[in-house]
Amino acid sequence: MPQVIFNPGGVKIDVPAGSLIQEAARKAGVEIGMPCGGQGRCGRCAVIVESGPVRRRSTIRLSAADVQTGYALSCQTVVDGDAVVTVPPQEKIERRLTSDKSAAQVTLPFPYDYARDQTVRTFYIRVDPPSYADNTDDFARLARALKSQHSIENAQATLGTLQQLSAALRAADWDVTAVVEMSNWFSPDGPPRLITVLPGYVETTWGVAIDIGTTSNVVYLVNLETGDVVDTAADYNGQVTRGEDVISRIIYAGKNGGLSELQSLVVGTLNRLIERMCRRQHIEPTDIHKAVVAGNTTMMHLFLQLPPEVIRKSPFVPTINHVPPLVARTVGLKVHPEATLDCLPGVASYVGSDITAGVVASGLDHTGVLTMFIDIGTNGEIVLGDGSWLISCACSAGPAFEGAGVRFGMRATAGAIEEVWIDQQTLEPTIRVIGNEKPRGICGSGLISLLSEMFVTGVIDKGGNFHVTAGHPRIRPGEHGGEYVVAWGGETADGRDLVITKVDVDNLLRAKAAIYAGFSVLAQSVGLSLADVQDFIIAGAFGQYLNIEKAIQIGLLPDMPWERYKFLGNTSVLGAYMALLSSRAREQIAEAARKLTYLELSADNSFYDQFTSALFLPHTDITKFPSVQEALTVKEPA
Amino acid sequence: MPQVIFNPGGVKIDVPAGSLIQEAARKAGVEIGMPCGGQGRCGRCAVIVESGPVRRRSTIRLSAADVQTGYALSCQTVVDGDAVVTVPPQEKIERRLTSDKSAAQVTLPFPYDYARDQTVRTFYIRVDPPSYADNTDDFARLARALKSQHSIENAQATLGTLQQLSAALRAADWDVTAVVEMSNWFSPDGPPRLITVLPGYVETTWGVAIDIGTTSNVVYLVNLETGDVVDTAADYNGQVTRGEDVISRIIYAGKNGGLSELQSLVVGTLNRLIERMCRRQHIEPTDIHKAVVAGNTTMMHLFLQLPPEVIRKSPFVPTINHVPPLVARTVGLKVHPEATLDCLPGVASYVGSDITAGVVASGLDHTGVLTMFIDIGTNGEIVLGDGSWLISCACSAGPAFEGAGVRFGMRATAGAIEEVWIDQQTLEPTIRVIGNEKPRGICGSGLISLLSEMFVTGVIDKGGNFHVTAGHPRIRPGEHGGEYVVAWGGETADGRDLVITKVDVDNLLRAKAAIYAGFSVLAQSVGLSLADVQDFIIAGAFGQYLNIEKAIQIGLLPDMPWERYKFLGNTSVLGAYMALLSSRAREQIAEAARKLTYLELSADNSFYDQFTSALFLPHTDITKFPSVQEALTVKEPA
Repeated sequence: MPQVIFNPGGVKIDVPAGSLIQEAARKAGVEIGMPCGGQGRCGRCAVIVESGPVRRRSTIRLSAADVQTGYALSCQTVVDGDAVVTVPPQEKIERRLTSDKSAAQVTLPFPYDYARDQTVRTFYIRVDPPSYADNTDDFARLARALKSQHSIENAQATLGTLQQLSAALRAADWDVTAVVEMSNWFSPDGPPRLITVLPGYVETTWGVAIDIGTTSNVVYLVNLETGDVVDTAADYNGQVTRGEDVISRIIYAGKNGGLSELQSLVVGTLNRLIERMCRRQHIEPTDIHKAVVAGNTTMMHLFLQLPPEVIRKSPFVPTINHVPPLVARTVGLKVHPEATLDCLPGVASYVGSDITAGVVASGLDHTGVLTMFIDIGTNGEIVLGDGSWLISCACSAGPAFEGAGVRFGMRATAGAIEEVWIDQQTLEPTIRVIGNEKPRGICGSGLISLLSEMFVTGVIDKGGNFHVTAGHPRIRPGEHGGEYVVAWGGETADGRDLVITKVDVDNLLRAKAAIYAGFSVLAQSVGLSLADVQDFIIAGAFGQYLNIEKAIQIGLLPDMPWERYKFLGNTSVLGAYMALLSSRAREQIAEAARKLTYLELSADNSFYDQFTSALFLPHTDITKFPSVQEALTVKEPA
Repeated sequence: MPQVIFNPGGVKIDVPAGSLIQEAARKAGVEIGMPCGGQGRCGRCAVIVESGPVRRRSTIRLSAADVQTGYALSCQTVVDGDAVVTVPPQEKIERRLTSDKSAAQVTLPFPYDYARDQTVRTFYIRVDPPSYADNTDDFARLARALKSQHSIENAQATLGTLQQLSAALRAADWDVTAVVEMSNWFSPDGPPRLITVLPGYVETTWGVAIDIGTTSNVVYLVNLETGDVVDTAADYNGQVTRGEDVISRIIYAGKNGGLSELQSLVVGTLNRLIERMCRRQHIEPTDIHKAVVAGNTTMMHLFLQLPPEVIRKSPFVPTINHVPPLVARTVGLKVHPEATLDCLPGVASYVGSDITAGVVASGLDHTGVLTMFIDIGTNGEIVLGDGSWLISCACSAGPAFEGAGVRFGMRATAGAIEEVWIDQQTLEPTIRVIGNEKPRGICGSGLISLLSEMFVTGVIDKGGNFHVTAGHPRIRPGEHGGEYVVAWGGETADGRDLVITKVDVDNLLRAKAAIYAGFSVLAQSVGLSLADVQDFIIAGAFGQYLNIEKAIQIGLLPDMPWERYKFLGNTSVLGAYMALLSSRAREQIAEAARKLTYLELSADNSFYDQFTSALFLPHTDITKFPSVQEALTVKEPA
């Protein structure tokens, strides 16, 4: 078998001839990011083949000079013999999930009553020890005590619980606290299920509320007795290097072993977050007896190892929206193995339980006021309604605002330009960089800011074309159209001019047009106009960095009074937290899932027209954006 | 780490210093039988240490000469450095489970109606393919079709079923047969559970009825549509080399890794039996959608990886008698992973579901006639009653009749003496050997026959003492009392004199006394006498080889008219077969489990008296055995 040596580090691995460099790297434990999921589209998994026979199936995004130098896409290049490969430094995923609230900031929108609302509860019992005269088996003995001391009838248990039971009862000398799942969404009237027995009298048990985002995972650790969030933790989804968006992940899942790898990666991330909080709070992960999970439908399929291919194929139907009640053991979540695992219900392939949870967390399901809700994450999902009715759609905006498809795009980590101001007279930019470092790229809020400033100052016109004839040194012709130099090489981290190109602008225009068209089509589909919307809820971590004025100026958000906009942060995890505590909140989410009508934009005739109209800054029809029109008028010479 | 080399074969293995030879052998894959489960009691795991530093913790059953030669008990000897060990030929477990009925011989004691009786059924459905207008998820779509086309409401599914669902529906172009568990014992009214979908129209599905015996495992393959047994298979329980009786197994399970090893061993045996039948019948193991299991409580605990220690400790209370509904995946049974797995309910630690199944299979639960039921296997369980009431006990007879604790005892395989006649005048024996080979030992039926003949001919007296003063060459003093030479060295397989000793006779007397005392105490406990018993059912494979006359002569069975005895063979697997087909039969077994009163003999004051009285041939009180008294009188010189 050919041996591949990965540098730096000199890691050696034997692989069958014909293996992809990517496969060899995975086997060797060498990390190579694959934002497009191994489709050979993004070019970011390029490595340098120093020696050895390889075959490049595709060299897209590599120049002839690159290939000459030895560059090859690791997802598209197979090794035919011993090879030496150098892996360039990978984009470091730095932790800057400061958008997470501190535990104390999380508030529940309803009063919590443990005994009334909670389905997983503790019951202290004294079990009669067995004797020759009373040789009832251990489980029946315990069930008898639950019935006589707490009127809990017909209790059942999984095999995993039974395997631990006899030793636990004896170790505690028959004096135990039973942790019981009284009901679940599928069986609201029981039967109750014994999760475990703990020695002696135990008052508190624990739960976790989980949001599985495509990019970020967030977990709240909750005291189920008081209902308090005692800790929160967040990290990038371990799947990120296997595709930046859901489509790339689905493609990766289709590769041999890809699905189970993605499942392990996300569960690994969640387990690390849970362990981290447990260490901080001095509890054991096995003290956690309930987990509630929200996430988009693709993330939920990957978490449950349900093949996600169907989500990507017309007519885009998932395997299941209302996932049956599970126990943690089934997916390998490192809480108590028999803990309740409740995956919240979604609506459709592109409107998942992150949205249904968000709808309930934001109160949209009973607002009474015409409200638009958008969750801007890696995907953009939109809901419109007043609670008595709700209609939703998903915009395939792509992760442009997370930096994908933009030459110097990057996530909001150290070195990212997060805000730009351009002087109207000199066209010189002023930038703010995360971490006050030399700039390495531009993150989503920086891109919106930059686009808006370039438009307002005339660097680009409403079609997104660069005004290269202006004779300004920063506005110059580029490879595929004009470009604007945001930072000269002398000021940047890698010494290269940091630019935004015509291609970048076009990608950003498409992304914002897709979202705006989503708003328009939703309103139109129910015979309303965007002006009728009274409340505009922006959910998702990204929303908190969004500058409303700039977002309106580029036509991403509709032009309406700013006070109508509300930023709620991560409503997905908030909804999961509510469902963790209350079976009624859980039922509200299921009700929202049933009530939400899903509009498939790709099947809607008017979508393409709306999209095309929105491909301008701010829009073909400037009268839809009176505040922008006014601003432009003021700035034009009289 | 010390290296141990096992001969013959020269298998090498590195183990930490201080490891038992047994552990090294297991790691090296070298089979060493351990009938006592590694307690250092039986002496059968002896090996020869050719070289190397070892420490013998115990040398019980080894003579000083043996130790001088290098013999050591592999379960009691640790290696302290490199060693070379020779493993003597191990007792070969040969297949002679001829007591199994052929498939065609198995008859069901009730008419079977698939649609009425069976809980796992097939439903052909045409599912509406999804479209933009109808984007219901796959599972809800299937559930909708089950409801509209077969009135099956509220269907649920396990995650394992869902993981396969989307691909299966599309591969079959939405034209499928759903295999549905309509109900189970815990939820007789549902909800129904989808097991799988099969492409197109499928009429037949399959089930297996399983009896997990301590020594032998038996599986019936059943066509669930017709109810016919289409094949049967049997083999020794793969755990046999880890202990011959349940106590030895429990002890072995307590060793590090022992429980999971025993679980794998028995599941491995069952999987091989299932595969063998599937190959013969040209079906796939995954075509089997239901499995029903009967077995004694220890076997059930080991099968389910429930720690069995509690069964062995006073007051002998198991973890669970009524095992919850499971799916095959949980234990690794190689049928369809989501197949129904129903473990039948037992009564107590020493009266398991092999007995409750047997009670129903034999009709004892509604006979109306005072009946004694005994299942003689590795254990002896007894039930007395007329169906309106039932009382049971277990005799710790030990596996003496399976050859354990008897110097030349062996299982009923080739080379075993299965019947003996002793000439009244010459005291010379005539023997019948299984396979017509040179004798290697004596099996259970041979031991009963021999004991009876020795007693009737006066080779031994009623106390089991050898008449060594008779001056007969075959009756001679042995190491621990007298012995009788059943076959001279010149006639035997290994050239050694094949004898039965005083120690052997004492062991056999204890075994038969325990059983007879069980009969007596049961009858006494309800104020009846053994003479009141109208029917006497003998279950278990061994029963079929039992010679009633001889068994009465040694006082194993009560002296009653022979026509009252009925041999039913393996009623455990028959009961499992009935439960596999009919939920009503399944409920009858649960009802029998609830109805059966368990009498713990070790806690019964009269048991010891009864046991002591029965330690004679046939009994202290010869008047209880009039037919034996008469036979002896006839033979005594007038």
